[in-house]
Amino acid sequence: MTEHTNKQFDADLEHVRSQFLQMGGVVEAMIYEAVEALSSHDPQLVEKVREREKEVNRYEVEIDERISLLLARHQPTAIDLRTLLAVSKMLTDMERSGDEADKIATTVRRMQDTDRPQIQLVELRHMADMVGNMLRLSLDAFARLDAVQAAKVVRSDKEVDKEWKAALRNLITYMMEDPRTISRAIDMVFIARALERIGDHAKNMSERVIYMVKGADVRHTGVRNTERQARGDEEGEAAEG
Amino acid sequence: MTEHTNKQFDADLEHVRSQFLQMGGVVEAMIYEAVEALSSHDPQLVEKVREREKEVNRYEVEIDERISLLLARHQPTAIDLRTLLAVSKMLTDMERSGDEADKIATTVRRMQDTDRPQIQLVELRHMADMVGNMLRLSLDAFARLDAVQAAKVVRSDKEVDKEWKAALRNLITYMMEDPRTISRAIDMVFIARALERIGDHAKNMSERVIYMVKGADVRHTGVRNTERQARGDEEGEAAEG
Repeated sequence: MTEHTNKQFDADLEHVRSQFLQMGGVVEAMIYEAVEALSSHDPQLVEKVREREKEVNRYEVEIDERISLLLARHQPTAIDLRTLLAVSKMLTDMERSGDEADKIATTVRRMQDTDRPQIQLVELRHMADMVGNMLRLSLDAFARLDAVQAAKVVRSDKEVDKEWKAALRNLITYMMEDPRTISRAIDMVFIARALERIGDHAKNMSERVIYMVKGADVRHTGVRNTERQARGDEEGEAAEG
Repeated sequence: MTEHTNKQFDADLEHVRSQFLQMGGVVEAMIYEAVEALSSHDPQLVEKVREREKEVNRYEVEIDERISLLLARHQPTAIDLRTLLAVSKMLTDMERSGDEADKIATTVRRMQDTDRPQIQLVELRHMADMVGNMLRLSLDAFARLDAVQAAKVVRSDKEVDKEWKAALRNLITYMMEDPRTISRAIDMVFIARALERIGDHAKNMSERVIYMVKGADVRHTGVRNTERQARGDEEGEAAEG
């Protein structure tokens, strides 16, 4: 590459990175707004989430197009290539996290339209805080090329799974004790499930950050191996299976 | 590229394509086996699905690595670049379809361990046939570069959504009529949901086939625009929004 195209590539790559971070900020806001709408019964919050979902879709298409162009025009290698491939994959997880937040908002709107018995479930807000935090930490790890922090996100997904199972048990108890709550409880099951999925997506994104920084594909290798790879220990090379 | 590296690239690209098709064949088998395990109560089928899931994970990591290498060594453009990027994205959808089949198998195993009341739900087998078919048609469209067939898969996802909603309504009715069925019915809800997700993944993969063949990103543009793009009509250019 000439110095000119080199500079142009660096600027374009930086643009991809910053657009992706902006997209992530939008999705993070959607998660809090969707769960806030559930307790505040504010229909405007629901609409806000639905509008943001379209914005997220536009980001996805636009960033993907830029990545294709950059790969076709310049011939990036090593960390530049890994960054573009990692963002390409992370985009999918980010867009689907936005989809999940949008599904929560749609469910909240349907719940507002009916006057079925209310269920207060403290686990839902707790889960929303956890997965919103995971998303922010993933973005932060991406921005700072911090593989160790990314590995922490991978580990924390286990906590989200525990919370999801607790929420499900509680909701089944509700349904059994008072069958009139069944429809409402099923809606809440879907909301909890959507939050659990966002946690999965944040975990996937963090695994991509580790790949980007370390060049090691840690998917399907277990949390402990992921942590070793992120720290750069040599024994991290062998997968746990 | 020299003639030699050109030939090498073509052979490597063909290898990526055929590996991806093999991976798809494994996932397709998992779907049928997981649903078959539900009605046959055969624990060996459950184990078979779980084994195959590991195989699918290995395919994902291996194919992704080959794609990175091909991008780094050769500098593919146009359809070759689009093919590699499309497979990179489709891999994620394929691996997650395998995950969903694995979750069905895990749920079936849990159901086998308890003697709660059985629920026969004809919609589940119907959904499994639909999404298994969608997956096969996506792979076929990919193998034959057939954008029109890919567009048909995108449209058929609407049928899966209808079936999923019908299954959910029936399961809620079961729960209300006999609260003893609640736990079992919730398991069935998750199985139906997993099948609906596989339909989503097949739709995503078909959208990627259209991008690969036509160079047009049809995500988030509506089914009718997708069909126009796939046929190559000029008015397909403007998104429906």
